[in-house]
Amino acid sequence: MVKKLALLGAGRIGKVHAKAIGEDKRAQFVAVADAFPEAAKAIADAYGAAVKTIEEIEADASIDAVLICTPTNTHSDLIERFTAAGKAVFCEKPIDLDVKRAEACAEVVRANGGKVMLGFNRRFDPHFQAVRKAIDDGKIGKVEMVTITSRDPGAPPPDYIKVSGGIFRDMTIHDFDIARFLLGEEITSVMASAAVLVDPKIGELGDYDSASLVLTTASGRQAIISNSRRATYGYDQRIEVHGSEGSVAAENQRPVSIEIATKDGYTRPPLHDFFMTRYTAAYAAEISAFLDFIESGKAPSPSIEDGLIALKLADAAVKAAKEKIVVTL
Amino acid sequence: MVKKLALLGAGRIGKVHAKAIGEDKRAQFVAVADAFPEAAKAIADAYGAAVKTIEEIEADASIDAVLICTPTNTHSDLIERFTAAGKAVFCEKPIDLDVKRAEACAEVVRANGGKVMLGFNRRFDPHFQAVRKAIDDGKIGKVEMVTITSRDPGAPPPDYIKVSGGIFRDMTIHDFDIARFLLGEEITSVMASAAVLVDPKIGELGDYDSASLVLTTASGRQAIISNSRRATYGYDQRIEVHGSEGSVAAENQRPVSIEIATKDGYTRPPLHDFFMTRYTAAYAAEISAFLDFIESGKAPSPSIEDGLIALKLADAAVKAAKEKIVVTL
Amino acid sequence: MVKKLALLGAGRIGKVHAKAIGEDKRAQFVAVADAFPEAAKAIADAYGAAVKTIEEIEADASIDAVLICTPTNTHSDLIERFTAAGKAVFCEKPIDLDVKRAEACAEVVRANGGKVMLGFNRRFDPHFQAVRKAIDDGKIGKVEMVTITSRDPGAPPPDYIKVSGGIFRDMTIHDFDIARFLLGEEITSVMASAAVLVDPKIGELGDYDSASLVLTTASGRQAIISNSRRATYGYDQRIEVHGSEGSVAAENQRPVSIEIATKDGYTRPPLHDFFMTRYTAAYAAEISAFLDFIESGKAPSPSIEDGLIALKLADAAVKAAKEKIVVTL
Amino acid sequence: MVKKLALLGAGRIGKVHAKAIGEDKRAQFVAVADAFPEAAKAIADAYGAAVKTIEEIEADASIDAVLICTPTNTHSDLIERFTAAGKAVFCEKPIDLDVKRAEACAEVVRANGGKVMLGFNRRFDPHFQAVRKAIDDGKIGKVEMVTITSRDPGAPPPDYIKVSGGIFRDMTIHDFDIARFLLGEEITSVMASAAVLVDPKIGELGDYDSASLVLTTASGRQAIISNSRRATYGYDQRIEVHGSEGSVAAENQRPVSIEIATKDGYTRPPLHDFFMTRYTAAYAAEISAFLDFIESGKAPSPSIEDGLIALKLADAAVKAAKEKIVVTL
Repeated sequence: MVKKLALLGAGRIGKVHAKAIGEDKRAQFVAVADAFPEAAKAIADAYGAAVKTIEEIEADASIDAVLICTPTNTHSDLIERFTAAGKAVFCEKPIDLDVKRAEACAEVVRANGGKVMLGFNRRFDPHFQAVRKAIDDGKIGKVEMVTITSRDPGAPPPDYIKVSGGIFRDMTIHDFDIARFLLGEEITSVMASAAVLVDPKIGELGDYDSASLVLTTASGRQAIISNSRRATYGYDQRIEVHGSEGSVAAENQRPVSIEIATKDGYTRPPLHDFFMTRYTAAYAAEISAFLDFIESGKAPSPSIEDGLIALKLADAAVKAAKEKIVVTL
Repeated sequence: MVKKLALLGAGRIGKVHAKAIGEDKRAQFVAVADAFPEAAKAIADAYGAAVKTIEEIEADASIDAVLICTPTNTHSDLIERFTAAGKAVFCEKPIDLDVKRAEACAEVVRANGGKVMLGFNRRFDPHFQAVRKAIDDGKIGKVEMVTITSRDPGAPPPDYIKVSGGIFRDMTIHDFDIARFLLGEEITSVMASAAVLVDPKIGELGDYDSASLVLTTASGRQAIISNSRRATYGYDQRIEVHGSEGSVAAENQRPVSIEIATKDGYTRPPLHDFFMTRYTAAYAAEISAFLDFIESGKAPSPSIEDGLIALKLADAAVKAAKEKIVVTL
Repeated sequence: MVKKLALLGAGRIGKVHAKAIGEDKRAQFVAVADAFPEAAKAIADAYGAAVKTIEEIEADASIDAVLICTPTNTHSDLIERFTAAGKAVFCEKPIDLDVKRAEACAEVVRANGGKVMLGFNRRFDPHFQAVRKAIDDGKIGKVEMVTITSRDPGAPPPDYIKVSGGIFRDMTIHDFDIARFLLGEEITSVMASAAVLVDPKIGELGDYDSASLVLTTASGRQAIISNSRRATYGYDQRIEVHGSEGSVAAENQRPVSIEIATKDGYTRPPLHDFFMTRYTAAYAAEISAFLDFIESGKAPSPSIEDGLIALKLADAAVKAAKEKIVVTL
Repeated sequence: MVKKLALLGAGRIGKVHAKAIGEDKRAQFVAVADAFPEAAKAIADAYGAAVKTIEEIEADASIDAVLICTPTNTHSDLIERFTAAGKAVFCEKPIDLDVKRAEACAEVVRANGGKVMLGFNRRFDPHFQAVRKAIDDGKIGKVEMVTITSRDPGAPPPDYIKVSGGIFRDMTIHDFDIARFLLGEEITSVMASAAVLVDPKIGELGDYDSASLVLTTASGRQAIISNSRRATYGYDQRIEVHGSEGSVAAENQRPVSIEIATKDGYTRPPLHDFFMTRYTAAYAAEISAFLDFIESGKAPSPSIEDGLIALKLADAAVKAAKEKIVVTL
């Protein structure tokens, strides 16, 4: 049955989800709210939705679910408020920059009996799903080591860095979730080397732009993460899993796969320019999974607990990088 | 402005176009007709269109354009009828299996001042478009030699073969169009070696299942086409253009691009299973181009003349293969 | 046991074989002859061989075998002379530009009971050998279609073109042999489209520089050959075999396999610059096979008959291209 | 001028160097010594060298240089002894398992004015050299992050593990050297997560078989190393360098590069089976570099100091993994 969805937040990621909702036949995109009415109107017009206030959406009993794409510092409040209102909630990562606040929020959700799914889009990428399936099908035996390369095409502006919570909570958080998705065991220790190699302004704001991490599980499985805020050749998103019987890897993606050969060599085009184009299929599958979740009543994946754990790993990474220690969880 | 479109024919290719229309915001899918009402109803229900007869669609002045996806032997009649009715027409290839009938149809279209675009979907594939753009951008210099590998995953059933017009008119016709799209010059001679290597039943019906062709232009540019009705590894669709300054190639496409390494080697998944999945983006771009064409009044590409030329090349190939001669056009 | 070898001809291809002999432990490189004593001396000095005349080599009973790397018009005479002298002979392709002369030579060899192996180096390329092995191992089922892409990095000088016998006898002859090596059936018809697209001087000399061929066997198996005298991106040497159960391909080779990613895309280096570097391993394996042949007394591969057939196919291609007909053998 | 070389140690790595010496025209392979006379004789016979004792080689004034390929615990003694004897020395890694002993050895070498080059073969791999050249040519801008994947095809037997010094001194030591070769700055801190995931026997001997490391330089550049003692798909040896303007990578190598496509997908063969085949070209280039070094009198690369630093990094990794701390150098 078609579900009525409302979007809270009409910014960059809000637009991405609006497109995914607009193309899913099981979803009816009924309302959008944003502090900037023009932004809300642009999306509303494009998809035939109405511009409403958050209060109006909250009060509208016909709305089944909301997607929270507002600034991070409003996430926990909105999750609590809309689960209390009996609506299913999809919330962009992270729950909050502060673990304690996020834990309190999770507690309220449990008390509300709320239905919440977290926005770790990469789990839904068809290529990463195929990697996970290869593992589940026993193609590579027992998982031993995971390698995640995750680099943005370019560093965000200082204003974004300021409210981002830092590279580990903003960017690596996706990789923590993917590491957990692939390792099949909980992470028990975090090592992190981080530096400012790309843009000194990022350093002036107390953040890093380049980081290398090693995560370890109780049985000794290891995940390596390589992050940079700038890759000239596009949005670099690769995963590889090494196991007892073999290895499986998801390669980078590009908009078109042609190759030009000249006297200078063989050249393929740069990668996708960022997540909006790289993960188009993932965002569509994510909305579909959210609709499945609403309908089925089964446990969500990723859940608010997955969001909490990723946040704790980010905090551990901050501590590990700053104090130059191995942080045990 | 949104255009109202009707679909004639609710078979395999009709479904492909229905999906493309359904997802294009500039198109409103209003009606579908088919000799089998159940088939028409299934598509109508999926996209919110109405089941109508061909006569009703013809008579409905609010309908801007039709997509002809009916059996080949009805194409010419319907093109003539709907251009006479003042509707823009998109017609699946071929115009007709008989060149004379196709030429007569083209004549009627000209007399009607009709707007007709032909359904050679591959021109709209983003990868092939990127190849064309690389040529236009001068990346490989002057075009000299084109190589087209085009193999179906599996042979069609005998009943299809019977009405298909044979491998050259049914399958190679796409490659003739792509060869012309890439060569930049008209083809003046055709050589063809054809055989029954896949399925003896195809031979019993007087057709071939494996063919190798060389097309030559007046200035000596050459295109090679390799066709097979069966490729166990999926829908094999590659093009390569060799020029004075270099070469450009579009690689095969697969649903997911992972690689699994084991003691037996490194394995990537098979290719797309057929045109419906391989050319999804091409079909969407094709509909978009059709809408552009309706709005702009510019010359269509591919035009009915492109369809005629491809058909003549197919006829030449039939003769070349049968009589073991080089056919000059 | 170590065999004593002499080299006739110290030109470009002579140097290639000298290196292969010098590195093979079963061969002792004892003598080299050339019309230009300086050329002979350079090779002799590099490998510890002696400069001798052809007559001295012929008369030296301790020499087991000769490698004929002299100009083409001397091949037949030397083959006859050295088989008469009881020496095993390795002769570079072609036997002669004239089929009748080549046939007469083969007749003399048979009369002499001579041991002759032909220099089609590509059969010994480890990658092409692996393709052949995949076929023999049944990996792709029954062979149906072969695709050979064979392009030189740059056109030879006019003086070479004049004595080369033309593109089909000089360049395509290798591809004819590889086609036979892979098809598993004799070729019964030849089609060829040839043109001057690279260098008008080649046309002035009555030759072509770009050619597309289709070869067909009695059962309908097909081989496509694409030749150009100029590929800006290096020595383009690819083969692909399509069969009833799958396909096998040998990719191009480059000196180093790195990839550089920048804002302009992902670039791999150009291919090998020509046969001397591309087929280094093949030339070594070829000499090893020649030594096996001398020792074993088994039938050589490629034999003088293989050389004759390739030459006849070249003649057929000349006729097919010139008269624009399909030539049946 | 041709140099006379003697080989100390006729084991696995000795054979590899014997082959490289045997094929280098600037080297004359005159003598080989080994505790097992049969092993020495086998190599001597194959390359025309004489079996001699270490004392005889030491006393033979005509011998220019020795290659030390004996067990690790004899390396330092032999380096000291043969530099004292005035011979140039090439010594396989490591100098010693004990850093203090290695430092003392380096001191003796300096006192002797000895010429010593260390055996880190990977620096000489043509693909890795091409990566280094791309960096030097400014293709990727300033180096920021290095990723090294280094996995053996299979774990060595327990007897080898016992005397190996552990995974970091035996296996990772090559990666430490390559990291320094690529980072362009000295490493100032080491993190390491290590576990026994492959073979419990390795754990019983106090060693690890799987390790993930992060190395950091003073300016914050980072190198990641991923090690496993077992990769079912062959000898996995990849490097990638990320810089301010782009990235450069050296891909894995396989004996033949064909691809077979079937209904199960597209399969390329496994990688080389181990270092003897993967690094054949590197070993040849290494001997050539050693001969250059002997002739030129220039500083060797890699030097005994490079060997010492790699050893100290290995010690740091042992401590980091064991104590779960970040070790600062």
